[in-house]
Parts: sequence; structure tokens; C-alpha cells
Amino acid sequence: MKKSDSEVQMLGAVIPEFGEIKVVEVDDPQVRSATDVVVKVAAAGVCRTDLDTIDGALASVYGAPQFPYIPGHETVGWVEAVGSSVTTVAPGDAVLLHPFVTCGRCDGCRAGRDMYCTDSRFPGVDAKTWGGFAEYVVTGERAVIPLQDGADLLELAGYADAGLTAYHAIKRLLPSVEPNGTIVAIGVGGVGHFGVQLLRRMSSCTVISLDTDPARAALAEELGAHQSFSGSLESMAAEVAGATGGGADAVIDFAGIGPGPVSLLDFVRKGGAISLVGASDPVSIDIVRALVQEVTIVGNLVGTYTELKELVSFQKSGLRSLHTRYALSDVEAAIDDLRNGRVVGRAVLVP
Amino acid sequence: MKKSDSEVQMLGAVIPEFGEIKVVEVDDPQVRSATDVVVKVAAAGVCRTDLDTIDGALASVYGAPQFPYIPGHETVGWVEAVGSSVTTVAPGDAVLLHPFVTCGRCDGCRAGRDMYCTDSRFPGVDAKTWGGFAEYVVTGERAVIPLQDGADLLELAGYADAGLTAYHAIKRLLPSVEPNGTIVAIGVGGVGHFGVQLLRRMSSCTVISLDTDPARAALAEELGAHQSFSGSLESMAAEVAGATGGGADAVIDFAGIGPGPVSLLDFVRKGGAISLVGASDPVSIDIVRALVQEVTIVGNLVGTYTELKELVSFQKSGLRSLHTRYALSDVEAAIDDLRNGRVVGRAVLVP
Amino acid sequence: MKKSDSEVQMLGAVIPEFGEIKVVEVDDPQVRSATDVVVKVAAAGVCRTDLDTIDGALASVYGAPQFPYIPGHETVGWVEAVGSSVTTVAPGDAVLLHPFVTCGRCDGCRAGRDMYCTDSRFPGVDAKTWGGFAEYVVTGERAVIPLQDGADLLELAGYADAGLTAYHAIKRLLPSVEPNGTIVAIGVGGVGHFGVQLLRRMSSCTVISLDTDPARAALAEELGAHQSFSGSLESMAAEVAGATGGGADAVIDFAGIGPGPVSLLDFVRKGGAISLVGASDPVSIDIVRALVQEVTIVGNLVGTYTELKELVSFQKSGLRSLHTRYALSDVEAAIDDLRNGRVVGRAVLVP
Amino acid sequence: MKKSDSEVQMLGAVIPEFGEIKVVEVDDPQVRSATDVVVKVAAAGVCRTDLDTIDGALASVYGAPQFPYIPGHETVGWVEAVGSSVTTVAPGDAVLLHPFVTCGRCDGCRAGRDMYCTDSRFPGVDAKTWGGFAEYVVTGERAVIPLQDGADLLELAGYADAGLTAYHAIKRLLPSVEPNGTIVAIGVGGVGHFGVQLLRRMSSCTVISLDTDPARAALAEELGAHQSFSGSLESMAAEVAGATGGGADAVIDFAGIGPGPVSLLDFVRKGGAISLVGASDPVSIDIVRALVQEVTIVGNLVGTYTELKELVSFQKSGLRSLHTRYALSDVEAAIDDLRNGRVVGRAVLVP
Repeated sequence: MKKSDSEVQMLGAVIPEFGEIKVVEVDDPQVRSATDVVVKVAAAGVCRTDLDTIDGALASVYGAPQFPYIPGHETVGWVEAVGSSVTTVAPGDAVLLHPFVTCGRCDGCRAGRDMYCTDSRFPGVDAKTWGGFAEYVVTGERAVIPLQDGADLLELAGYADAGLTAYHAIKRLLPSVEPNGTIVAIGVGGVGHFGVQLLRRMSSCTVISLDTDPARAALAEELGAHQSFSGSLESMAAEVAGATGGGADAVIDFAGIGPGPVSLLDFVRKGGAISLVGASDPVSIDIVRALVQEVTIVGNLVGTYTELKELVSFQKSGLRSLHTRYALSDVEAAIDDLRNGRVVGRAVLVP
Repeated sequence: MKKSDSEVQMLGAVIPEFGEIKVVEVDDPQVRSATDVVVKVAAAGVCRTDLDTIDGALASVYGAPQFPYIPGHETVGWVEAVGSSVTTVAPGDAVLLHPFVTCGRCDGCRAGRDMYCTDSRFPGVDAKTWGGFAEYVVTGERAVIPLQDGADLLELAGYADAGLTAYHAIKRLLPSVEPNGTIVAIGVGGVGHFGVQLLRRMSSCTVISLDTDPARAALAEELGAHQSFSGSLESMAAEVAGATGGGADAVIDFAGIGPGPVSLLDFVRKGGAISLVGASDPVSIDIVRALVQEVTIVGNLVGTYTELKELVSFQKSGLRSLHTRYALSDVEAAIDDLRNGRVVGRAVLVP
Repeated sequence: MKKSDSEVQMLGAVIPEFGEIKVVEVDDPQVRSATDVVVKVAAAGVCRTDLDTIDGALASVYGAPQFPYIPGHETVGWVEAVGSSVTTVAPGDAVLLHPFVTCGRCDGCRAGRDMYCTDSRFPGVDAKTWGGFAEYVVTGERAVIPLQDGADLLELAGYADAGLTAYHAIKRLLPSVEPNGTIVAIGVGGVGHFGVQLLRRMSSCTVISLDTDPARAALAEELGAHQSFSGSLESMAAEVAGATGGGADAVIDFAGIGPGPVSLLDFVRKGGAISLVGASDPVSIDIVRALVQEVTIVGNLVGTYTELKELVSFQKSGLRSLHTRYALSDVEAAIDDLRNGRVVGRAVLVP
Repeated sequence: MKKSDSEVQMLGAVIPEFGEIKVVEVDDPQVRSATDVVVKVAAAGVCRTDLDTIDGALASVYGAPQFPYIPGHETVGWVEAVGSSVTTVAPGDAVLLHPFVTCGRCDGCRAGRDMYCTDSRFPGVDAKTWGGFAEYVVTGERAVIPLQDGADLLELAGYADAGLTAYHAIKRLLPSVEPNGTIVAIGVGGVGHFGVQLLRRMSSCTVISLDTDPARAALAEELGAHQSFSGSLESMAAEVAGATGGGADAVIDFAGIGPGPVSLLDFVRKGGAISLVGASDPVSIDIVRALVQEVTIVGNLVGTYTELKELVSFQKSGLRSLHTRYALSDVEAAIDDLRNGRVVGRAVLVP
């Protein structure tokens, strides 16, 4: 059981200042409000967003972190302690954490759109609330999804953000695509490898997967893509044009193709749909072409609690969550491998 | 009755070479295929697209016109002669012309999406088929909508393209907006003045109309807008932010705001929708912002035959089609006034 | 201010046994849980459901009431006292009450579908929780909608159930109807008189209103119906067939037409939609006809908290909530008038 | 090649009077209008509707047939001759026939809803136009779908009506069901055996298949159903309730369960969807229950030309069209076997 003594410490991977991360002893998190849930971390996924946090790239959005800051927003574990009003979980329960801790009262929450909550915490991202790269993390009752006994927690970590993001985007995209259409999926990384599998399960469409890296393109076929291409964006765009006779019905960009001579508009036919999931560098879409091509473009931001619950139910269909395991104490190696494209699927920290 | 002698000529406003338009005698159009319909023109709307045709700005899309070329794609009139297989209209019938002459056989046509026809003619635009700035024009049976006796043809000319474009875009936008939401409508010109009226009729939303010209902004309120702003885009964006508490539920750009410091993303809240209708100068949308704001962006391209028929039924609701009448022989003045922003509503040529 | 002494009593209209209702002194309601909100009643609408509760017709659904039982599920008032975790309202605030008190944790609540809550209270209906026919009523934080200063509370009472039910049904129906279509609305009572006004505000459709009572049919036109018919169902069905050329695009039955020779299928064209709102007597729809006519039939059950909030925003559009005022002490007269069809709009009790 | 001599005859299975069918020599069909297409029949599926035609059960809908009448509305073959305006197919082309021959001009056709055509022929059903139980049949250009070389025509016959009906219904149902939901599919006959396969391809839902016949229930699992039950409707309803914890998300009735103690409402949860596909005996749905359960009920009538084209593209996914082959001369045996439930999949006549 968790130590009740407030002086007791835990291990956490902290950012002491921009550019660094290291494992140190920090204060153990405590239940402070009636809806708090303290979770003993079983595994925490490492995401590109964590690199941004370490590098200070999110300071313009969330303000400078209060150092030392613990990142990590893709967490699975066991309930350790709960606030006085918590009724849906109890200590010992295995839980998956939705990345947002929401208020339950604002218009967004009342309509079931958790990411639109106007009074939320974003542990491991918001610069104030510690995240999951630690032995324990605090979340709220509205963020925890109870798991069945025997659930493979390491496998589930990646569902919390990478899987959820892919699922949400695909669910929003599919009403724009006819049965048996063709969808181009760009990127087979942390999010994209979920995307390929979910596109196959959630639609009857032909899935063409693209990745600049041939090994990842091959992985996509293993995960169910009907066809895959690798190489430069220009060459892949040409191959898609050939395979689809002038453009797919939809393209979903899990990776963020970045600025350059190739536009997402190049991948889709007149009347097609473009789903935006990943993006990093500034990149823009030509409105005049979007108008003449009569495309629909859909932006996507993580997903809802209900969607995460729906996604968990896909486990029984054999949905694979590729991951590479690192001990929490090896956080620096995990970060380094991610930066250099050496991770297959999701890097997962295990305390 | 129309002269059957093929040597007889009609008056038409032709482009003899880029940059010029003048009324001359040309050969009368004849029925050449079983589905042809020759229409005696009652009125023909003048659109910005016609300026582009005159200026050669569409040559990159449709090829150089076969001079002399007659523009005009917004036509209303009376059936003069029909091909052998035509059964839905007969000489003497008043008809409104959908701008596209479609094949009826391709996938687009079979699904009711006329603008996706892969074997179409676009009279007055496609560089090969003469349009409506003339005494007679040839169209096809699939493009004609019979009108009721006594219909005000001058009033209806603007429906064919300007009205249809506004209607199609609004119909596609509304499923993304909750009842009683707020919609910002940019531009109160040929298309936008229909847009304001249709937004009021087709939704319960609060309509905020923007136009750089104060007189047009005032017109919008007369046409039903709940509120209007004029001035620079920057100042209007600030006023919208104030009036909506941080962004409307949707923005529909009838005018094409062009490149500059203001983005369509500035007008809408998180989860909002952006409808693209008008556009001329190259302008682009920042994908990263579109993604984080989780917006839906919808491109629009004219509308379908069925939609034009639906739009005609709005006449009985008092839908106004503002227009300024010019004799066909005054085509140069009409073009000049349009270029210089001196036309209220639609300039309409009457042979 | 409310009396803090727990021995103090309030006046409430109780059902002492099936078939009776009378005003007596009962215990004042108290805050018992952290999310409770005690509301001082300003007005409480009287609904046909209350007649069913008095008559025992709901015992098969909710069990026999714990006598003495206070009905009333359409309540508006001022916050009197709040539980320890309540943050969104404070004593003195004017509030409209959603009829359901939901848990906020189940799948239904998390998806924003309040009526699907699996752990709810239904004050005034559920046989255990006292409702709003009293000086005070207890509800929960998730059920209260704060109102603006100066809101006309008597006017708003009817929104809570009658208005919400009409709004929810229309919002679900409209995606099945094209712009400018024709909708038949049956019944101009408590729910239907909202329905007519909302159909006009939320759509561009022609609204044909039907009521067996000519005075109500006339009221419908006053409220915005384009056309109305009264008389027997058979004669009204014939008049609708004539006016629509064979069937409307949709029919919405606010009243519940009951069994008999006329079917809701008789009012709509092939491919039309049927919205079910009111129903009392057993009545059924012929599946073979529904299939051949390819209709869509939509059942409706009250509405969500978010929808009620949206509906409140319609006040500014001049939405009228017709009501007849009765003192709480005249509850028996109100019930009697409702039973005998002598109430215009909603009967509203004022303590 | 087809004989050009108009005196030459072909073999056709005619109904000489109600209750009988036999193969006789009849006049060869000829091209009579510009859009006619004469097809040499490769195979023609036998449907329950043909039994109704033979028995006179459709006379109330279409009038008494003009004897001798040739039934058959599920036809595949090769183009033999075409009218003067036909351009999309040429003699020798393999084609699948949409069951409706539509006008292409009415509102239904213009919106892509072929079954709503108001000026159509229904060969083999409409009592006037001969169908496909013959060596040759006449259809129209708008009804023919060109097939790829080498297509298995016998396999495709069942697509034209049975497959199309299942596809259309599922496409309309799926927007009402969340990913990974549970769908109950009733009936594994001509339509239902397509339904099970299409539900698996077009959705991520768990498919529970029901058939009173254990062999058919077993077939459903072979075709992809996750689970199947057989036996009485009462016992299957109880098993579904157990397996789903109180009701599936949707039920689709391919068979038409008929009147009795079990209602389609018994198979679905609150907020669930009911899709009506098959029906024969009069049967009805209790409106009050439909309303309180807040279900959506969708009627279905065959499908569109575009949908049939989409369905053909599912062939490459291994969609199986179970059929039992009969020579045209054995039509009486085929009819007899169908009447007595001795046909697996579709009975297919081969001239």
C-alpha cells in the first residue's frame, strides 16, 4: 500500500530546466480534493508532445512549466487512493487514464465533448500539473476508465492518447467516405499504427499507407493496410495518384507532412475529405484549391472519455498496441530514441 | 418565332480577344443533338467569373477560349427549340438554366452530384461553349428547370449561379451548427446578399454580416442580418470576437477575404466550422491552428440541379434577388461597373 | 430566507391516495447530499403525466408512489440552499430545472444524453422523489440552469418539459427533411404550441398544423403555422393529402393520434419521416407499409440538459410559452381544467 | 448472335394464369426506344416476390398481369442490342441489371434515388413488362452496370436485388450505430446471407445472427457472424437479451418476423435502431413503446443504381453469393423448392 506519511517520497522523471529530464526523488502526490484519484503508475507512454515540453516548445501555449515538472499524459495503472466523493473506482482497481481531467459542469462536458472543457487540468502537459512519468500520479474521477481483471496494462498505455487520437479522427472522418472507398493514411508511428488497424476495423475502405521509412510502410501492411508506399512525399503522391486513378476518397495525416511541394490536396479526388491529426511545422492549405476541389477538412484534437472507453472495447478484436519497454530510470534513453526515430510503436516507461 | 434560316444571325456579346467585349452579329445557335435545348435569353447575370474569362484568367483551367467567345453562365429565358429526345420542356416554356450541362450517365450524375459530372459542358465558361450574353443560347435538357407562369424572370437570373452557390454552401454548413448558434457571413455582394437571406430562412442562427463597405453592411441588416460590421478586416474580426465572446460557431466567406493578417480561423470558436465560397487571390489556412482549434472546413462548388429547384421554391418566401438592369448592348458598361464595385446585387443583361 | 429550523413546514400539493390531490403542510425539504440544490418554487407547470401519476397509471412503470407524494416535474424558481460541492449556482440565483437529476458518471451522462442516465431521480414522477407542486423542491446541481436577471419565470416554467420535449424532437427530425419541405404538426396543446413556433424558427419548412379543436388550429396560425386544419382525423388527413399532393415530407405527432382508421403513415410521402412525441392509448404502425413507403420513424423522450439550455436561448426570438396561472392552493381546479381540455397552453401553479 | 428476324422466338418461363409457370416459346424482345437495351440472360435469381407474382398476391399493387407474363427481376447477362442513344454499353458487354428502369428526369432520379422514380418500369414485377426468366429481356440504359471481363455472372445474379437490398439497408442503418456496437440480424436467407457478410465488412460491430433454422444459423457463423442463435423467436429474444445485457444497439430484420408475442423492440436497448427489410404478413409496432424506448425505425426499399455499383466492388473482398443452379426449363422445380424452404442462398435460373 501507498505510504500515508506525507514526508515519504517517490521517484519521478522531472524536467529541472528546459532541455533536460532526469529521475529524482520528489514528494509523493496526495488526494487534495473530493474528486481526486491517485494512481500507481503501471506504464506511461512517451509522446512527441513530451519532447516539446522538455524543449520548451509548448511554453507559448501553456506558459513556462513550474520546474521541476513531470511530463507524461498517457498513463495506465492502479487506483491507490480516492477523494471523498469518488464512487466509480476504489483502491486496487486497474484504470486507464483519459489525458484530460475535466470539470463535468461546463457546456463542453455536458455535451460529452471532454476536450472542450473550460475548467480542466492536463497532467504532464499544462505546465502546472504533474504527469505520469513517475511512480504515482494524481488524476480525477472523470478521467479514469476501469479495466477488466487481467487486462494487459503495458499494451493499454498507448490507447490513452495515441490510440484515442487515431480513433477520434477516424470516427469523425468516416461519415464523409462511402463504403468501399479508398483512404490514404500518412504515417505509421505511435498514432498511425493504431490508425491503420482501426481504419480496417471501422470501415470497408481500401487502406493505402504511406511512410517515408520503408520498414514502417512494411509494418503497415502487416497491420492490415491493403497497400503501402514509402519514399519521398513526391514519389508517394505520384504512386497514390496512379493507384487511385486521380485521388483517394480521403486522406488522414497522422504524421503531419509539413511544408513543401506536396499538399494534402494532392492525395484526394474532387469532393474528397482531409483529416488532420498530426502536425508540427507550420504548414498551410491553399483555400482556392480547397474550394474548387470541394474538399472537407476536419481538424482533430485527442478524443472524448466515451471514445476512449469505446476504443478499449476494440482490444478483443486483436488491436495491437506496439510498444518498446523502458524502465522509468531509463527515461533519458527513451527520449533519445524517440528523438532519433529508433522507437517502434510507442516507447513505454515502467516505474 | 425563331428564324429557321441558318443564315440568320443574332446579337451576342463576344470576347474577340482577351481584355475586350463587344456586341456583334454572330450565327444563331441551332439544335445539334437529341438532348439540346435552344433558349431565347430573357436575362443573363454578370459574375466575377465573366471578368476572369474576359481577362484570360481562366485559360489555365479551361484553355484559351476559341475567339470570338460568348461568356455568361447565369441565364433565364424561354425554350425556343428542342432536340428529338427532349420531353420535359417544349417551345415557349419559361426556364431557369443550371450552369452545367451534364451527361446523366457518369457516377457524379447518377448520385445527383451534377458538378461532379465528368462529361459536361459549361456554357459561357468552358472556353468552347457559348454562354448567355446573347439573344439565344444552347443548353441541354438536364440543365433546364421549368418555371411557373408569370415568374419574374429578371428576378430569377441571379438564382442560377449566385443564389445556387449560396444555397448549396449553407445547406452543407448547417449540419455542423447547433440551433440558435451564431454564424458570421463575410461579403454582401452577388452571392452574399442571397446568403444572408437564406441563413435567416434555413436556420435559427444569429447572423452577423461583415462587409468592408458600410453601405453593403447596412444592406445586410435590411435583408435580415441581426447585426453587421464594416471597416477593415482587423477591426471586424475584433468586433466579432467581442460580440461572440471569442468566436462564432461558424463563418461563411462569400467574398474571399484574401491573404493578410486576418485568418478565417480568427472568426470561429474551438470546434467551429468554416465554409469556403468565394476566393480569388491565393490564400491559405494554417493547418496546425485548424487542428488545435478542431475546426471543420468545407469547400463549395456551385450546387446541384435539385438544389437549384429547391432554391426556386424559396421565391414564395419573399427571397429578394437584387439586380441592376443593363441592355445587352450596354455590356461594356455593366462589365465596367462590376469591375469598379458600382453594381448593387447582380448586374443583369437583357437582350 | 428559508427557515433553517428542520421542524418548520411548507405547503405542498400531495397525492394522499390515487385519485386525489390536495394542499397540506409537509416537511420542508433539506440538503442531504453534497450535490443537492433546494429550490424555492416560482412556478410549476402541470402536465398530462401528472394526471397519470394521480390516477395511478404510472405505477406499472415506477411502482406505487410512497404516499403522500408530491408531483410536478416542470419547475422554475430560486436557489434556496446548496450542498457542499455545488459551485455553479448559489442561493438567490434564478434557475430552470431540467426534469431529470442525473449522476454524471454513467455512459449516458458522459455522452451528454441525460435521459439515458442509469442512476437518476425524476422528481415528481418516479414515485419516490417529491416534485415541484410545493413551496420548495430538491434537485441536483446537474439539473439546474442559471437564468439571467429579470427572466420571466412564469413564462419559463413550460420550457422545462413541454418546450424541451418539442425542441428535442424537432432537432432530431430536421436532418431527415430537406430545406423548404412540408411538415405536418399534429396537436396544439402544451407541447404542440411550442412545436409550431420552433418548427418555424428552426427550419425553412412549410408548417401545416392540425388539431381536432378549431380554436387550437386557429392558435397555431397565430403562432406561425402557414396553414391549419381542424375536424376529424379522417378529414384532416384528406386535407393534408390535397394540400401536399400526396403526403408531407414529415409528420410530427405532438398529441398522440391514438388507434383508429388514420395512420401517421397517411400523412407522409414515400421516403418521409415520422416523429413520435405524444402518445397515450395503445397504437401501432404497420411495418409492411413503413417498409414499402421507406419511412424513417423517430421516437423521442424529453431532451437533454444542453438542449434545455439551447431552448432557453430562444426566448430572445420571441418564443411564447402560453400559460394559465393558478395559485398552488387551486391545484384541484388546475387539474380539473386540464382533464377537461379547458387550459390554454400550460397550466402553471404559483405557490 | 441474336436473330434479327422478328418472327423468331425465344424460350421464356411464363405465367399463363395465376398459380402456374411454364417454359414456352414467346416472341423475342426487340429494341423499341432509343434507350432500350436488350440483354441475353446469363442467370436470373428467383425471389419470394416471384412467388407473389405467380400467386396473384401483387395484383392489388400492380394490377393483374397481362398474361402470359414473364417474372424475374434479378438478372445478369450480356448486351445483345441497344437503342440509338445508348452510349455506355455495347453488344457483347457483360452487365448486371438494376431491377428498376428509371426515367432520369424526375426529382427522384435527379437526386440519385432511383427507387423514387415516378416514371419507371419494373420488369418481371410491374405486370406489364416482361422480366428475366427467359433467354432475353429488355431493360434501359440507366439500369445496366457494366461488369469487368471474367466476372462470375452466376455469382452476381443475386447482387441485383437480394444483395442490393441488404446493402442499402445496412448503409442507412450504420450512422445510427456507434463503432463496436452490437447488431442483431434476423434471417439468413437470400437477403440475410448477404447481410451478415456486409455487416462484418462495413462496420466494426459484433454481429449476432438469428434464424429459426439451425442450419442457417450455422451458415451465418461460417459467413462471419460472431454468434448465432436458432429456435423459436421467444427463445432467441431471450438469448439476445442475455448476450447483450438488455438489448442490442440495433436489429435488422431481413426475414420479417411476422406478428406474434415477440416484437422487434424486444431486441434493442433504449435509443437503439430498428431496420426493416423483409416483411410479409401484417405486423405492427407499438408506438408508445417506440417512443419511450426512443428508437429509430428505418424502412427500406431495394436500393439505388449507385449502391448496386458500390456493392459490385465488394466482390473483390470475397463476398459470397450463395446460389443453387437450375436450368430455365426446371423453373417449376426451382419455384417448388423455394416455396418449401429447400433452397440454400438464391435459386438461379440459367437459360
